[in-house]
Amino acid sequence: MTEHNRRIVLASRPQGAVSSDNFRLEEAPLADLERGQFRVRNLYLSIDPYMRGRMNETKSYATPLALGDVMIGGTVSEVVESMHDGFAVGDKVLGMFGWQDYAISDGAEVRKVDDALVPLTAYLGVAGMPGVTAWYGLNKIIAPKAGQTVVVSAASGAVGSVVGQLAKLAGCRAVGIAGGSEKCRYVVDELGFDACVDYKAGNLYRDLKAATPDGVDGYFENVGGEVLDATLARMNPFGRIALCGMIAGYDGQPAPLKQPSILLTMRLLVQGFIVTEHLDVWPEALATLVKLVAQQKLRYRESIAQGLESAPGALMGLLQGKNFGKQLVKLA
Amino acid sequence: MTEHNRRIVLASRPQGAVSSDNFRLEEAPLADLERGQFRVRNLYLSIDPYMRGRMNETKSYATPLALGDVMIGGTVSEVVESMHDGFAVGDKVLGMFGWQDYAISDGAEVRKVDDALVPLTAYLGVAGMPGVTAWYGLNKIIAPKAGQTVVVSAASGAVGSVVGQLAKLAGCRAVGIAGGSEKCRYVVDELGFDACVDYKAGNLYRDLKAATPDGVDGYFENVGGEVLDATLARMNPFGRIALCGMIAGYDGQPAPLKQPSILLTMRLLVQGFIVTEHLDVWPEALATLVKLVAQQKLRYRESIAQGLESAPGALMGLLQGKNFGKQLVKLA
Repeated sequence: MTEHNRRIVLASRPQGAVSSDNFRLEEAPLADLERGQFRVRNLYLSIDPYMRGRMNETKSYATPLALGDVMIGGTVSEVVESMHDGFAVGDKVLGMFGWQDYAISDGAEVRKVDDALVPLTAYLGVAGMPGVTAWYGLNKIIAPKAGQTVVVSAASGAVGSVVGQLAKLAGCRAVGIAGGSEKCRYVVDELGFDACVDYKAGNLYRDLKAATPDGVDGYFENVGGEVLDATLARMNPFGRIALCGMIAGYDGQPAPLKQPSILLTMRLLVQGFIVTEHLDVWPEALATLVKLVAQQKLRYRESIAQGLESAPGALMGLLQGKNFGKQLVKLA
Repeated sequence: MTEHNRRIVLASRPQGAVSSDNFRLEEAPLADLERGQFRVRNLYLSIDPYMRGRMNETKSYATPLALGDVMIGGTVSEVVESMHDGFAVGDKVLGMFGWQDYAISDGAEVRKVDDALVPLTAYLGVAGMPGVTAWYGLNKIIAPKAGQTVVVSAASGAVGSVVGQLAKLAGCRAVGIAGGSEKCRYVVDELGFDACVDYKAGNLYRDLKAATPDGVDGYFENVGGEVLDATLARMNPFGRIALCGMIAGYDGQPAPLKQPSILLTMRLLVQGFIVTEHLDVWPEALATLVKLVAQQKLRYRESIAQGLESAPGALMGLLQGKNFGKQLVKLA
């Protein structure tokens, strides 16, 4: 085993868009284990939009990272050394071990995962936080009835792809919004959505109207900005909007909502949520998702960048919509 | 009895703000009653913000008025002639008989009211639709716990005044937003709110921050526009916003929401509602409100304009915030 840990820390806060200057790769010697601890080698790192918010100094829903902190991130890892009775060398675990090769844990908030059921990487995507996020917003906020129309933005992404497939399984019309014809083809042809609107084609509202002839009953928002404006204008009375992500505003540029009066005239419900605040639903959601993946009723795609040093670029690409499917970094 | 009915109809649609040109006073002979009908003389007409929306051609949550239609409005009336077994001459009734002296009804959606419990005019205000609107938004959407902070805009108005007083009765800190120092003094000194912010004083956000040292847990929105922006920036995590009115956008000028991302970062709930779509709660709400008025635990103020011909001016004044308390027109 190497004697050093490589890690990527927050070097500076972004002024506008994230740049590679905001990160610094460091090496540090491995600390010794104490009784009750174990060491993991991180195998895969998950790259997610929420990371952008943590890089700002201003308080979002979570404490910001301090300069010099290891970048936060979900990981699947293998136990490589243990002085903990509950974890043995070779165990595969899911945790939040961040942008680094090795980490030490006492087992708190770490969950063992079984790669006999689904591939390890699925626990960072369709059968992990993104999947539970989709499940929660769809079932607990939108709560669609069969025959209703559900729209989801960032439809080819880790969350959006699950929202639409679960909506289809619930008997709904599922309509995606994604950037580019390739992503839209994937959403319709491979994921089985009824339609997908390419917001880069320049006719967002007109195309969305054509794709939602009966209006929109539920909207799962991953993006914000003009995509939210356009969908709001298609909402039916008593529609529900699950507010999960607002990438459009992450870099600090203004992203106003043009017609908030629609919320009143259509008597809409809007609920912002963070899935980690609803841990009570995770067991039910994960059981459902793992089963659907194993039955091949939930499809997913991954973009896997190679090596820790590729993580900053992977995040920048994600924030610009360049990834295709769940963005991961293979660390070992 | 006079042989003629005077009525005010929609003569033209407003271009921007409502003007007196948009109305026309007409006279028409009284029609004969048929079996199963009765005639009312309207005593008081309620003037409410929703009337503005009905004057537009564009579809809001309700069908727009057609040109030439009698202006819509809630009324308390006296039965003056009856061929209906359920209604006798002298009965006092609550209905939607509009901007006119007389009307004919078959009794549908008409309710008898008892002026021995509370004054007749209260059935158009604190013990009527505005009161139930306040009760619904506060109890069914905001659902505040004792000790939490509830803010309401248009706090001296028919709805807002009830929201704050009910919040106080529920053990909350009640903070109003109103236009002008006279209204604010009334809200604090007579209605018993803990604080009131004068949005016309020019320091809306700063003053609201001072009045809500623990942030805002529930917001009852009657106004929209910059008042909504300011309050949104004071919301606590998991706050609830009952969206009842958006006067700011009625005249068609843009009223964007500046920072919708707060809905996500603070995990807020927003629910637009129209109280007439929740008739199931009316009996419970009205029983509570009538009792509180009779016990003098709910105070209210009325602005009463004299005569049918004063109704257009009363509506224009209401939309400009010139009224003080529930706006009525005395018709007889």
